[in-house]
Amino acid sequence: MPEPKRILIVNGPNLNKLGTREPEIYGTRTLDEIAAGCEARARELGLAVDFRQSNSEGEIVGWLQDAAGSADGIVINPAAYTHTSLAIQDALRIAACPVVEVHLSNIFRREAYRQNSYVSPVAVGMICGLGAQGYLLALEALAGILAGKRAG
Amino acid sequence: MPEPKRILIVNGPNLNKLGTREPEIYGTRTLDEIAAGCEARARELGLAVDFRQSNSEGEIVGWLQDAAGSADGIVINPAAYTHTSLAIQDALRIAACPVVEVHLSNIFRREAYRQNSYVSPVAVGMICGLGAQGYLLALEALAGILAGKRAG
Amino acid sequence: MPEPKRILIVNGPNLNKLGTREPEIYGTRTLDEIAAGCEARARELGLAVDFRQSNSEGEIVGWLQDAAGSADGIVINPAAYTHTSLAIQDALRIAACPVVEVHLSNIFRREAYRQNSYVSPVAVGMICGLGAQGYLLALEALAGILAGKRAG
Amino acid sequence: MPEPKRILIVNGPNLNKLGTREPEIYGTRTLDEIAAGCEARARELGLAVDFRQSNSEGEIVGWLQDAAGSADGIVINPAAYTHTSLAIQDALRIAACPVVEVHLSNIFRREAYRQNSYVSPVAVGMICGLGAQGYLLALEALAGILAGKRAG
Amino acid sequence: MPEPKRILIVNGPNLNKLGTREPEIYGTRTLDEIAAGCEARARELGLAVDFRQSNSEGEIVGWLQDAAGSADGIVINPAAYTHTSLAIQDALRIAACPVVEVHLSNIFRREAYRQNSYVSPVAVGMICGLGAQGYLLALEALAGILAGKRAG
Amino acid sequence: MPEPKRILIVNGPNLNKLGTREPEIYGTRTLDEIAAGCEARARELGLAVDFRQSNSEGEIVGWLQDAAGSADGIVINPAAYTHTSLAIQDALRIAACPVVEVHLSNIFRREAYRQNSYVSPVAVGMICGLGAQGYLLALEALAGILAGKRAG
Amino acid sequence: MPEPKRILIVNGPNLNKLGTREPEIYGTRTLDEIAAGCEARARELGLAVDFRQSNSEGEIVGWLQDAAGSADGIVINPAAYTHTSLAIQDALRIAACPVVEVHLSNIFRREAYRQNSYVSPVAVGMICGLGAQGYLLALEALAGILAGKRAG
Amino acid sequence: MPEPKRILIVNGPNLNKLGTREPEIYGTRTLDEIAAGCEARARELGLAVDFRQSNSEGEIVGWLQDAAGSADGIVINPAAYTHTSLAIQDALRIAACPVVEVHLSNIFRREAYRQNSYVSPVAVGMICGLGAQGYLLALEALAGILAGKRAG
Amino acid sequence: MPEPKRILIVNGPNLNKLGTREPEIYGTRTLDEIAAGCEARARELGLAVDFRQSNSEGEIVGWLQDAAGSADGIVINPAAYTHTSLAIQDALRIAACPVVEVHLSNIFRREAYRQNSYVSPVAVGMICGLGAQGYLLALEALAGILAGKRAG
Amino acid sequence: MPEPKRILIVNGPNLNKLGTREPEIYGTRTLDEIAAGCEARARELGLAVDFRQSNSEGEIVGWLQDAAGSADGIVINPAAYTHTSLAIQDALRIAACPVVEVHLSNIFRREAYRQNSYVSPVAVGMICGLGAQGYLLALEALAGILAGKRAG
Amino acid sequence: MPEPKRILIVNGPNLNKLGTREPEIYGTRTLDEIAAGCEARARELGLAVDFRQSNSEGEIVGWLQDAAGSADGIVINPAAYTHTSLAIQDALRIAACPVVEVHLSNIFRREAYRQNSYVSPVAVGMICGLGAQGYLLALEALAGILAGKRAG
Amino acid sequence: MPEPKRILIVNGPNLNKLGTREPEIYGTRTLDEIAAGCEARARELGLAVDFRQSNSEGEIVGWLQDAAGSADGIVINPAAYTHTSLAIQDALRIAACPVVEVHLSNIFRREAYRQNSYVSPVAVGMICGLGAQGYLLALEALAGILAGKRAG
Repeated sequence: MPEPKRILIVNGPNLNKLGTREPEIYGTRTLDEIAAGCEARARELGLAVDFRQSNSEGEIVGWLQDAAGSADGIVINPAAYTHTSLAIQDALRIAACPVVEVHLSNIFRREAYRQNSYVSPVAVGMICGLGAQGYLLALEALAGILAGKRAG
Repeated sequence: MPEPKRILIVNGPNLNKLGTREPEIYGTRTLDEIAAGCEARARELGLAVDFRQSNSEGEIVGWLQDAAGSADGIVINPAAYTHTSLAIQDALRIAACPVVEVHLSNIFRREAYRQNSYVSPVAVGMICGLGAQGYLLALEALAGILAGKRAG
Repeated sequence: MPEPKRILIVNGPNLNKLGTREPEIYGTRTLDEIAAGCEARARELGLAVDFRQSNSEGEIVGWLQDAAGSADGIVINPAAYTHTSLAIQDALRIAACPVVEVHLSNIFRREAYRQNSYVSPVAVGMICGLGAQGYLLALEALAGILAGKRAG
Repeated sequence: MPEPKRILIVNGPNLNKLGTREPEIYGTRTLDEIAAGCEARARELGLAVDFRQSNSEGEIVGWLQDAAGSADGIVINPAAYTHTSLAIQDALRIAACPVVEVHLSNIFRREAYRQNSYVSPVAVGMICGLGAQGYLLALEALAGILAGKRAG
Repeated sequence: MPEPKRILIVNGPNLNKLGTREPEIYGTRTLDEIAAGCEARARELGLAVDFRQSNSEGEIVGWLQDAAGSADGIVINPAAYTHTSLAIQDALRIAACPVVEVHLSNIFRREAYRQNSYVSPVAVGMICGLGAQGYLLALEALAGILAGKRAG
Repeated sequence: MPEPKRILIVNGPNLNKLGTREPEIYGTRTLDEIAAGCEARARELGLAVDFRQSNSEGEIVGWLQDAAGSADGIVINPAAYTHTSLAIQDALRIAACPVVEVHLSNIFRREAYRQNSYVSPVAVGMICGLGAQGYLLALEALAGILAGKRAG
Repeated sequence: MPEPKRILIVNGPNLNKLGTREPEIYGTRTLDEIAAGCEARARELGLAVDFRQSNSEGEIVGWLQDAAGSADGIVINPAAYTHTSLAIQDALRIAACPVVEVHLSNIFRREAYRQNSYVSPVAVGMICGLGAQGYLLALEALAGILAGKRAG
Repeated sequence: MPEPKRILIVNGPNLNKLGTREPEIYGTRTLDEIAAGCEARARELGLAVDFRQSNSEGEIVGWLQDAAGSADGIVINPAAYTHTSLAIQDALRIAACPVVEVHLSNIFRREAYRQNSYVSPVAVGMICGLGAQGYLLALEALAGILAGKRAG
Repeated sequence: MPEPKRILIVNGPNLNKLGTREPEIYGTRTLDEIAAGCEARARELGLAVDFRQSNSEGEIVGWLQDAAGSADGIVINPAAYTHTSLAIQDALRIAACPVVEVHLSNIFRREAYRQNSYVSPVAVGMICGLGAQGYLLALEALAGILAGKRAG
Repeated sequence: MPEPKRILIVNGPNLNKLGTREPEIYGTRTLDEIAAGCEARARELGLAVDFRQSNSEGEIVGWLQDAAGSADGIVINPAAYTHTSLAIQDALRIAACPVVEVHLSNIFRREAYRQNSYVSPVAVGMICGLGAQGYLLALEALAGILAGKRAG
Repeated sequence: MPEPKRILIVNGPNLNKLGTREPEIYGTRTLDEIAAGCEARARELGLAVDFRQSNSEGEIVGWLQDAAGSADGIVINPAAYTHTSLAIQDALRIAACPVVEVHLSNIFRREAYRQNSYVSPVAVGMICGLGAQGYLLALEALAGILAGKRAG
Repeated sequence: MPEPKRILIVNGPNLNKLGTREPEIYGTRTLDEIAAGCEARARELGLAVDFRQSNSEGEIVGWLQDAAGSADGIVINPAAYTHTSLAIQDALRIAACPVVEVHLSNIFRREAYRQNSYVSPVAVGMICGLGAQGYLLALEALAGILAGKRAG
């Protein structure tokens, strides 16, 4: 039986407070619950996930750099850093594996300054507005991509 | 056993030529193959799908108006009309059911004039860049939303 | 007794759903009720009206072209096409008769992308935000213009 | 018999010179003639009008403040102040009654700096390009609004 | 003797009214006269032309899709759709043959909103401002391109 | 037999290096070959051409001023000066004869700063993207214009 | 005992209607109550205040000009003139004493056209969003500045 | 001997404080001294001047309206109203006589918001940056214009 | 005696160097001196302050998250992060208590890129340009707000 | 008797064609006539003028460099180079003497691309729209400046 | 023999991965190799270098603050923080010694969002596009500046 | 011994006046001194330099065209033409050898209109703000590039 593909799931600033933070925008589920959901779905999909969160741009950059060689795919919800961090874009280029960008809310229905993404230019695709489910769909998408099944 | 939820899947202009049209951007799968895939996944999810394509903005507007009362959710890939049709946005408001926007390519890696969406302001969420798989994920997302399971 | 002046009243996409569509913006009156109101007022003003609606930009273009020679004035509520259709502007130039632009809502209190009008450069005037009454006022305005009574 | 509704009609700078001022844009009718026309139409509609003109932004602000409590509706042609006076917008908020904005010319066919309106965000609707007739239509619109008949 | 190369000539909205429509801008020749001129010149150049006009964006999209396989080159005067239709651009990509864009008037001397072209990014070249003659020059240009004689 | 119409053909900076300069953009034909082609076609059209090139904005301005009185039409490929020289526009106004603007490449598919033209506001029309053939088509267009045959 | 420092407090248009005007934005306190609060706080701080309001830009300009020589500091809430009056900026330069700008509401949370200030370039500082208390804090700030105690 | 031509000289807000106001920008001469200089030069040129200043936009509008019929030419230094008053532009149109715009300082070397002029579109010409001398040159220019001697 | 309200005072990057850093802009007082001043004033106002500084965006985000539940109000001088950190805005939303934004200098008299604030949309108010005194005024403002005394 | 002050008068491209070039904009006077007028006025003012014209940016740059040391003041009408030549601005800095900028037409009533001036940032002042008279006024202004009489 | 001048060389995020990261843009040399090269060149120039890298904006800010007093010059390659960090600009002001900005790639040939630099306003100069050699040239430049030999 | 590599050094307008021109920006060294410095350093590096200056855009274009075949590398300080000449960019493409762009001052600390460069898109790299030393560093950089030693 083959090694499961390894997926790094990176969460940006303030996502550690999910569940209490503006639940009308971000939902009531905590980050731990989302992590548990991801792990369950990953097992079904034959993937191994490494689920992390940080408020520090530098720490996230480091994790993504380390993904080169240790991860087969990345799911990233960069939260506020989506819109302000070019360093994370550069680190994702270094990681050099397929990236799926996830946002809990539909960023295109929010403030103008939340409608650009520095991550999109290096991501295969984006899923937004679908809440915690977005993570599961991203895993499913990565599973397909890594299995070479995404034929358009 | 309950009635399956009805999902209207609407495809915009030129998508009838998928498979031959710029396959490096849009993949090699034809629209019929995507339709078949959607129907298969819908059955698994307990959904009934109505899969359509049109090159006519007015015809799409009519289908979406009719969805009010006859559909429980909408998946829409408006293709070029994403960026130029406000009439489709208005028709989606009339449809008054959850909408998931799908794009085969990652529109944020393309020309500037393909990076705005008139549909986003009325969509629950967007999935882009994940090819034909995006439709399946959108169905899965709608299934979750309609089952009331999307809790953030 | 002279022939009554002929007024073409053209309604753009989604207006066929008035009454149910976002009534807090567009009111509760249906398009049929508005048509009836227009016909009643037209009779009082000695005008003959031809009241139409289409979701198709091309069909509207055709109607407006045909107005050259068959209509003495035009009332147009282009709805979403106000903001996206240059073809309708060109067709109104061909029609070559006085045009009054009507919008049910005050477009200047809405989204930025609803605040330009491709029709205004070829319209005598605009009436917006006054609901169904706007059509009646537009008829009254055209009656005055056609009677040569609009002296500033 | 009920008290007639009281309508304040406010005219901005330079409108005291109507009739001589650029008649190809503004028509040949004087402001006194327009006032007379408004009074006649008001009587038909069961309204009482108070028709004023000032070149002073501060004086107009004062009149509008005083309208709170003494007027049931306002017709305003702010002329040049349309585009430069935020103080008039604030005063209209204080007036707290329905406002119809009128412009003699179609401001959307003029210089770019005449195409924004600081008054629109607080007006029910706008009538422009219909010359002196615009005032009469505005009165008719207000009559409808105050009678609660504007049902979209 | 070889088969003549097949050229599809597509005309956008309102061009069916040429000759009467703003002749100071568009000239006095009718579209039928232009078609006749194109056929005559085509015969001289050894080309076969299929000359069409539509007011419907969707219909034009369909014609262009069908050109893939049935046409060797395209002359397109998209009229108002030049500036508003991304769907036509996408259809031209599908057509996958050399495209020459024609405009009767010099669009760079007109309103700002007529100075962008969604067609240019997929056209070999553009001819504008030369009236009906522009069509003939475009045919000549395509003849050269298809004969492989365009060497810069 | 009438005097042939005299056409001044002006080429801007760096066009003297055609054939070696970025042939994938500008083709492999040298300017001398283009001149020869123009002379041949001119003879067929009954025109006399004066074909020139300069890297100096001031020299080009002088040539265009002298065209007043000595040329019946102008073909100009201003190259880089298209986008930076207002002096050439002013000189073309002085020349006071029909001008056709030519560009070898399709400037609308290039850098943003190559997509405006200071020459267009004074040109009858523009031909771009058709390589050396564009000069020949421009001559043909001018022949038609000077013969009074351009009737739209 | 030294003369108390004299502070001119200037209030712009519509502030005379405080307390009734949009209390959810501007609070329920009247301008007279704010004046009384300022006088009380001024006495504590050893300042003498001259508290004024005008709807007239010209009158405010005159007051500020007169402040040169008669006032040691200025508190100004220019209200709507903040965003439209350059004349007030110029008059504040003439006044040539420390200026503190006050806004009752947080202008940076309001419409875009309320987020620039023509007064800021000539003010020492700004206090906004703190309601009537803002005036008291401004007095306290000026007291510190005039006592030479503001050392960063 | 003919009646001298009558010139209205209008000065905008804060110019009454010239001489003390930012002398490094506006010079040390008072407005009275400038008025005296204008009167002296006017006598030499056979002109009669009426020299005024106001801080009130409305008052200036009134003076300019009255100039229709009572003045043959206008020199205006609108000061801050240059950049914010469209009402003054409209009043100058009513005045309907040649206008020369004067600014003491070179407004093109100052803040961006002092580099547009609402007066320029209705002025014959502008003189700026030449201090008090600018008024004298403006009088001289008007004398020439009124004598019909300005032949370019 | 009630518990004193707890105020978190957060200082952003480089403020640890106050006193030596560009004293003509930021003053000569050190951050320790400001902290001492805040503590003294807090005691007078019955507040307890927790005064912090960090150069790390992530650390500041963490402190603000922790304020939810442990602080009753926040004074924040985000320094350079004012203009670049959306993560701090999000953290302030989580903190969910009244925020007063302080800047030592008047940011509206500085470079354009220092004139937007990502913090303003979540702050009650802003105090800028008043140096170290701004902190004391912010404490006073928060005391008023927490005592429910800010009534406009 | 002192040496007369030396004034260099520089005219930019196409001004050699004055009198014939668009006389409705630039007047009917030739450049030689303007030169003669300047020389006459210069004699009255005790100035010596050196009047030149060139179509070459480089030549103008050279003349202006040489003015350092050989001219006491400069009058420049840079014509089209006003809007496109930064090299002339730099050369005027080298010239290091007072510069008055002249334009025959009122550039602020022309195309947008004629409303910026690269010369203004280094000119004492500008005179525009006053035709040939503008040169005479500029000489008069320089005479005043060089006599030290410009006191605001 | 004098103490060698001390140069702090600071490298921003992701530069620790040089050599493997997009070598077609950044080259194949590792950061250690660049450090070694810098040390060798520094010895030749009589400089002592302290070579550092961090992914953390806060850590870089701290290093730069500490440079005040401990470094005589700074070479900084801020990588992605060039475009997003104002905190680093502020820290460089505190460092108060000559700064040379280095970029491996020519940032002006890259994405628009990589073409502004927050560091430039506080740097003596910039070297970009010259790869690892840029560091050596920056050291040489600083050696010259510190020796007072840079005389323009 | 191999032929030395030939470097063309081109200086744009007004650089012939270095040393006297705004020495606080450009330094006190003359262009001759810079040339001498370049020749000295070139000898050390085994390069042969050809050092030129022109005020004429056309002449510079010619020199750069000639560099194709006669130069191995180019150092260019285009001065004002940096920002206005696309013709020089095109000529540099023709030259087809490595280009290093040099500016004496840090253009990113100057006026906005000096912060774009038409040369950058065709240069290997840029050195700015380092005065005359910048030329020497550019030579050193070119030496490295031509020796094939620039490995990132």
